[in-house]
Amino acid sequence: MDVLKIVKIGGNIIDDDAALDNFLAKFSKLTCHKILVHGGGKIATKVADKMGVEVKMNEGRRITDQANLDIITMVYAGKINKTIVAKLQAHKCNAIGLTGADGNSIVSEKRKVTSVDYGFAGDVSEVNTETLELLLKLNIAPVFCAITHDGLGQLLNTNADTVASELAIGFAESYETELYYCFEKNGVLKDIEDDTSIIEIINTVNYKSLIEEGLVSEGMLPKLNNCFQAITHKVHKVCIGKPEMIFNSEEIFTTIQV
Amino acid sequence: MDVLKIVKIGGNIIDDDAALDNFLAKFSKLTCHKILVHGGGKIATKVADKMGVEVKMNEGRRITDQANLDIITMVYAGKINKTIVAKLQAHKCNAIGLTGADGNSIVSEKRKVTSVDYGFAGDVSEVNTETLELLLKLNIAPVFCAITHDGLGQLLNTNADTVASELAIGFAESYETELYYCFEKNGVLKDIEDDTSIIEIINTVNYKSLIEEGLVSEGMLPKLNNCFQAITHKVHKVCIGKPEMIFNSEEIFTTIQV
Repeated sequence: MDVLKIVKIGGNIIDDDAALDNFLAKFSKLTCHKILVHGGGKIATKVADKMGVEVKMNEGRRITDQANLDIITMVYAGKINKTIVAKLQAHKCNAIGLTGADGNSIVSEKRKVTSVDYGFAGDVSEVNTETLELLLKLNIAPVFCAITHDGLGQLLNTNADTVASELAIGFAESYETELYYCFEKNGVLKDIEDDTSIIEIINTVNYKSLIEEGLVSEGMLPKLNNCFQAITHKVHKVCIGKPEMIFNSEEIFTTIQV
Repeated sequence: MDVLKIVKIGGNIIDDDAALDNFLAKFSKLTCHKILVHGGGKIATKVADKMGVEVKMNEGRRITDQANLDIITMVYAGKINKTIVAKLQAHKCNAIGLTGADGNSIVSEKRKVTSVDYGFAGDVSEVNTETLELLLKLNIAPVFCAITHDGLGQLLNTNADTVASELAIGFAESYETELYYCFEKNGVLKDIEDDTSIIEIINTVNYKSLIEEGLVSEGMLPKLNNCFQAITHKVHKVCIGKPEMIFNSEEIFTTIQV
């Protein structure tokens, strides 16, 4: 099977022009099949501020009302996604920027209203890889922002880490799929203040004890859940660390194992 | 040769939810290959207002400084493009929303600074149909907004009518290509106040006299130039009128001929 690397980048790269350029230059040179998934960074909040739209959160999760969905669609699918695609083209990496609505590639369900109404937030229900596989065969890199659709005309805001893991699961049968979560740290750290305290392997066994010992911060839990979702659904390799982990074989980072 | 219909819609459809829904429902049902090109409508100006960004014009043409390019990219490639794609999917029409940067499909050159600096405005220099043809073969409808790129990492604002005619010219050798410019009138009118005064055929001969007689308004000239560009470059059919011209064989509209 061919190797497919799915790389998720977040705000620490998107919000830093030099870091983004540096990352995209290296990403372009990957000779295997590749998909990039990007989060939103701080631009959406800045645009919301300028437009006088209030950003509402509940326990760290964004509440996506219509005004915020509009802003997210503009910033994620427009500004950030197309800037990345144009930069990749400049590096001679053919790319196409997508939401889940494009090619009907990621269908999701609007999150049900319980005690909290998250608004236009979507939980992935279906990944269609047909069109994407054709793009990959043409050596085109799909670039996904974290917007999906419900198939009934509604765009939905979806967690970018989840988009990446669901895509990886969708491709796990047809490619030797590797999933890389890039963030600002060298991996999952035992001591958040010590960037050398990398937990090199997290598996289902030590994961439990890491949580019990309070060594995994709350912010890491959803990311790790996405990692375990992927690795338990035939994704070949799942890693968390700085982007260098993808390009430099000497890097140390966290690998998730069953 | 297979028929390919390239349809350009503008503000009168984009800015009117009911008109857009109605148009997309019918567009979805076209059984031939199809590409949709959309302009920007009034949303970009509204967003610019809200963000406190001044929209600068010179003789009816937008001057695209960085702040305006950002807004255009957000609104055209984000909000409008992805809303259209999601709606098409709801009508079971598989679609992919694109800028010229995606798939490197439309390359343009930044307009040279003369007495006026139009900023990040791009004039089309190259259309690459390879990826688009593959999408068409999969019965996917590409949906283009009027943003292109220079191949060096810069997104550029390009006239939507020109995007449509350049795409039509790019496909003219491989498809029996039909180009439809939809707008709010029944076609090019002899008397702008009389919606029945449709000039049914404009060719190079009567075009000159129409201009000399002052029967073609200044706003129509760039659109007609795009039409003549297309029809003199092997595009099979070029029409101007209300969207009904595409769907209803009894409609009367303007056809451009050599």
